[in-house]
Amino acid sequence: MSLLVVGTVAFDAIETPFGKTDKIVGGAASYIALAASYFTNDINLVSVVGDDFPEDFMNTLKKQGVSLDGLQIKQGQKSFFWSGRYHNDMNSRDTLDTQLNVLADFDPIVPDAYKTCDFLMLGNLMPSVQQKVLAQLTKRPKLIVLDTMNFWMDIAMPELLETLKGIDVLTINDSEARQLSGEYSLVKAAQKILAMGPKFLVIKKGEHGALLFNNEEVFIAPALPLEEVFDPTGAGDSFAGGFIGYLSKTKDISFENMKRAIIFGSAMASFTVQKFGTEQLIGLSQEDVDERVQDFVDLVQFDISLI
Amino acid sequence: MSLLVVGTVAFDAIETPFGKTDKIVGGAASYIALAASYFTNDINLVSVVGDDFPEDFMNTLKKQGVSLDGLQIKQGQKSFFWSGRYHNDMNSRDTLDTQLNVLADFDPIVPDAYKTCDFLMLGNLMPSVQQKVLAQLTKRPKLIVLDTMNFWMDIAMPELLETLKGIDVLTINDSEARQLSGEYSLVKAAQKILAMGPKFLVIKKGEHGALLFNNEEVFIAPALPLEEVFDPTGAGDSFAGGFIGYLSKTKDISFENMKRAIIFGSAMASFTVQKFGTEQLIGLSQEDVDERVQDFVDLVQFDISLI
Repeated sequence: MSLLVVGTVAFDAIETPFGKTDKIVGGAASYIALAASYFTNDINLVSVVGDDFPEDFMNTLKKQGVSLDGLQIKQGQKSFFWSGRYHNDMNSRDTLDTQLNVLADFDPIVPDAYKTCDFLMLGNLMPSVQQKVLAQLTKRPKLIVLDTMNFWMDIAMPELLETLKGIDVLTINDSEARQLSGEYSLVKAAQKILAMGPKFLVIKKGEHGALLFNNEEVFIAPALPLEEVFDPTGAGDSFAGGFIGYLSKTKDISFENMKRAIIFGSAMASFTVQKFGTEQLIGLSQEDVDERVQDFVDLVQFDISLI
Repeated sequence: MSLLVVGTVAFDAIETPFGKTDKIVGGAASYIALAASYFTNDINLVSVVGDDFPEDFMNTLKKQGVSLDGLQIKQGQKSFFWSGRYHNDMNSRDTLDTQLNVLADFDPIVPDAYKTCDFLMLGNLMPSVQQKVLAQLTKRPKLIVLDTMNFWMDIAMPELLETLKGIDVLTINDSEARQLSGEYSLVKAAQKILAMGPKFLVIKKGEHGALLFNNEEVFIAPALPLEEVFDPTGAGDSFAGGFIGYLSKTKDISFENMKRAIIFGSAMASFTVQKFGTEQLIGLSQEDVDERVQDFVDLVQFDISLI
């Protein structure tokens, strides 16, 4: 079952209480594709970079089973760059610099072979760009997952609402769920958002875990309590990658299986935050992933038989 | 197995975004005893009130199986009073008024019949008062659970640290765990706190659930996502009451059983926040409690078989 991943492939420069990086590879689609690659090797990428982007990382993606036929390389242009500084609590951050570069006029071109994908992950991008991808597909995917952020709610809400009508799963964080719905209670927020189009809503709460909503059903997964969260950048995207990677592998989009996908997504996110950038997501073994998932099982399982 | 509950029985006046109350009955021991009463009817209370305290509520406690032989009623004096206003997010609040009244010189007297209790719940009180209770016991209880707060860390840290040496389970919230340990990571905080005396640490995170730590083991329980959190007052105490009530009923203080106790505690807390004060904790049926616990089971259970 082929998975199409659309999103940024870019540079980040990150400061955390534990240190700072120069320009390192980042971008939503990088994290999504890497995380998904532990579940399927039929991954296609649509994105754009400048001619400054390291071939090394492209080779890493290819080695992980990611096809790059849809990656535009713009000669004479620079890749998207974001720089940010995390506060001590690691839950909030300041943007220090944003250089759109190639992203300013990104026109996604979906190669013909990708147009019949079974699973589609639309990483955080301008909603109109996400729509352009949808418009090029020749077959409705089995599942469309979309990630977005408060920035688009601020400046492109009508386009975002239009895009939401055509998708299956929306992934946002708790403050974005509140902003999108106008409701403080996440239960009420979920009800309103599910009425906007998506059949499933994933609310990401960082160190407090994630919630999955569908009709009257709710599922909660914790985040793994870690001794150190080194760099939260890409955690949400790694979560999304593990989530859709697992669904794509199992071909089962029932609520029960989505619960499992949430756990696998949480496991992938827990790797990402342990090092700067994408480093920890490269070269994991199946045992590493399984052990981490087992940690989640141990963390939440209990046995109550009600009399 | 007898349960001894020590803590405040008092008046609160509460403002939330949903409304405000006049003086209503509150106090840590009220919530603890009521929540525990759904699991055992062998509950003894040690506390103090003034002659202004309503006999109605004392009768309610008695009806729920709580023995009041250790409740001092100070003639000519007033009960402890606290008044607070919750912010819109319900996670933070301002104290508007605190009148210690009878609590100012509270000298807890443990009736002889209570001195051999099997389970002891020391609700939030000055650490030296908690120690006075411990000093009167003629037999080491099977389990001593202690709740405290940042206020005592600010003004009575040496006494608190001394008290912690003799207890089994400490329940505090996440910011208190950070303050007590000087560590931001809750995993590191737990390691340090478990070295201070308690064998188990429960970190209460309000709407984000609760964590249980013991040696290398961790368990996480979510809070129930509710459409409305009406009044968070007493949630932590109701949690503690359900927790120790369940342990007292089952007489099993293993980590596995404490996980279950955490779920029952979380269930009791989820009732409390649905109305002002203790109202929702009175007159629940066994079915109500079982149904609520089942909600927690449904909320977190998933089935992953790793290949």
